[in-house]
Amino acid sequence: MKYGVFGTGMVGDALASGLVKLGNEVMMGARTAEHEKARAWKERAGTKGHIGTFQEAARYGEVLLNCTQGAFSLDVLRTLDRKDLAGKVLIDIANPLDNGMPPGLTICNTDSLGESIQRELPDVKVVKALNTCNCQLMIDPGRVKGEHDMFICGNDEGAKEKVKALLREFGWKSIIDLGDITNARATEQLLPLWLRLYIMYGTPDFNFKIVRN
Amino acid sequence: MKYGVFGTGMVGDALASGLVKLGNEVMMGARTAEHEKARAWKERAGTKGHIGTFQEAARYGEVLLNCTQGAFSLDVLRTLDRKDLAGKVLIDIANPLDNGMPPGLTICNTDSLGESIQRELPDVKVVKALNTCNCQLMIDPGRVKGEHDMFICGNDEGAKEKVKALLREFGWKSIIDLGDITNARATEQLLPLWLRLYIMYGTPDFNFKIVRN
Repeated sequence: MKYGVFGTGMVGDALASGLVKLGNEVMMGARTAEHEKARAWKERAGTKGHIGTFQEAARYGEVLLNCTQGAFSLDVLRTLDRKDLAGKVLIDIANPLDNGMPPGLTICNTDSLGESIQRELPDVKVVKALNTCNCQLMIDPGRVKGEHDMFICGNDEGAKEKVKALLREFGWKSIIDLGDITNARATEQLLPLWLRLYIMYGTPDFNFKIVRN
Repeated sequence: MKYGVFGTGMVGDALASGLVKLGNEVMMGARTAEHEKARAWKERAGTKGHIGTFQEAARYGEVLLNCTQGAFSLDVLRTLDRKDLAGKVLIDIANPLDNGMPPGLTICNTDSLGESIQRELPDVKVVKALNTCNCQLMIDPGRVKGEHDMFICGNDEGAKEKVKALLREFGWKSIIDLGDITNARATEQLLPLWLRLYIMYGTPDFNFKIVRN
């Protein structure tokens, strides 16, 4: 499969690397085709790693991943040619965090980044996933021992099945499908607790689990 | 110990009953001294159960519990005589939910109900706790098998130690102290996910756990 990954930060780097490791061809998209961090990633990624602009990554990928900073995701996605996006699955991994310490959310409660993207790009099948844990855990859930959960939501069942299959390839055993994309409100609102726990524990190696009988 | 419980709904009823069961004297406070639900509770509670107005419960309790509907909690607490509150521990169990389906929050992200109450009543030691699970689970965490967590936060260490001791009496084994009362933002923001899971599972018998190595 060909993936387009938007973003060159820690999350984009981890996901792009994880996808290459699974045998996929991946293009990391950035503001410029010769972005320094993208080039550094390509050196590590080898022949299956490609770099380009956001637009080139959008055209390249059969499935797209939004790993840009959440506060800027809509600005980035709005610049893309709709023809290159139509009908594709877009996995939205970003959280709309502000610059507070700990950060708060720039969109929340009555809306979410996932919903905003779906509204902005109605022809894209947005699936919110992977936004509730650290990026190394996203591609290697076994880093945290024991059972823990990945939440996903989105309006298109077929798109969610594709994303669940990818999550299983990464090693996720427990995937909780919350329903339509409005549930992104709920998962993005886990970030305030996640960030506080991260500061408190001094490590991002933890995750949420829903315990039931 | 003498407790004052504000609120006659499911949460107030469960907590007041749980406290009586532990051998405490409890006054359930309501808008009126002869509130129908409070009277019904008193009949079940026996000789250790007392009822009165919010003001009478505030005076009676050495430790107070806010189990009113979150959207109205500040209105209720503002009516109370500050002399009867000064220096007391107030466990804030309420969530500021609106009337949406699923409900959203009326305060969130940059503020929380817990913080609002602490600002309104600076002489009270507000401890946010028990607001992230169902009321039957609050007083009987063993209803959900396996390990799961209770989050607490507040500005006064002594007050939190008192509340932790009470939580342990109820059977809580894993209590995560997040720090000061601003962390109420994080725990109140768990409600959107909790409410969606409740609708999805059709039972409130589940809880959050943080899984770590």
